[in-house]
Amino acid sequence: MKLKSIVAATLAFGITSTALAQVIGKAEDQIRWRQSVMQTVGWSMGRIKANIEGTYNKDQVIQAANTIQALANSGSGGLFQPGTDTGKGWRETNVKPELFASGSAAKLKEVGMAYNKEANEMAKVAATGDAAAVKVQFGNLGKSCKGCHDEFRKEEKK
Amino acid sequence: MKLKSIVAATLAFGITSTALAQVIGKAEDQIRWRQSVMQTVGWSMGRIKANIEGTYNKDQVIQAANTIQALANSGSGGLFQPGTDTGKGWRETNVKPELFASGSAAKLKEVGMAYNKEANEMAKVAATGDAAAVKVQFGNLGKSCKGCHDEFRKEEKK
Repeated sequence: MKLKSIVAATLAFGITSTALAQVIGKAEDQIRWRQSVMQTVGWSMGRIKANIEGTYNKDQVIQAANTIQALANSGSGGLFQPGTDTGKGWRETNVKPELFASGSAAKLKEVGMAYNKEANEMAKVAATGDAAAVKVQFGNLGKSCKGCHDEFRKEEKK
Repeated sequence: MKLKSIVAATLAFGITSTALAQVIGKAEDQIRWRQSVMQTVGWSMGRIKANIEGTYNKDQVIQAANTIQALANSGSGGLFQPGTDTGKGWRETNVKPELFASGSAAKLKEVGMAYNKEANEMAKVAATGDAAAVKVQFGNLGKSCKGCHDEFRKEEKK
């Protein structure tokens, strides 16, 4: 991973370069932490979906949306350091090596910023308690997740 | 797990009873999700610690503290349903069966509320950028984590 793509990942996930120097962790730690972050996002997305499709509970949607917002702004992009393109956290990483290629910097920044934007908007919309608007924003947020997964994540191993 | 302790867990982690009916997941899902939440808290605690002990970066501490706050208020107590006292998520659960005993309700509520309180305070203090105050509050938050771990978590298997 070249400096340019580290910087792009850094910007995309809102982590400062000073911060990069701290708590990077061993490769296995980084992979386990980012898998944990993504699982927690997945749990929260599932909760919002269940509320849209079932009985809508405003407080639960707010809990889930605030969780996603905090994680999208947590600087978890810093957990994709060089040397973590392969390796095992909870399980083998599903990251594609393309994420670490310097040529991916622009795309990485684009998908990262889209995810941040939609996650922040999701929290705002959840706070209104407007189930119809939540449904629309949930779709937008899901697309932003997919935008990164399609580019940089291998199909999940079951 | 008797109704009384479900209610206590519910109150302690800020999840409503209506919400409990949605997205509970299979036992293995609940265990994997709660392990993911706790790992993410652990990552965030490590980041705050590194900032206290190393070069202090206000933005990184805010990211980490906001993450912990969101997770403490995420309703993850709902992921400790009856039947999840044993089982494997990412790994075998470390929960003690005592958590599910009706006699633990008062203690569970006490430790859960203490964690929420300290996590909310951590986010407030982080926002000030006062490193000395962050250090003090980090200690308070750590004690509230330990309060629950000592009661309800088995020693971690390496």
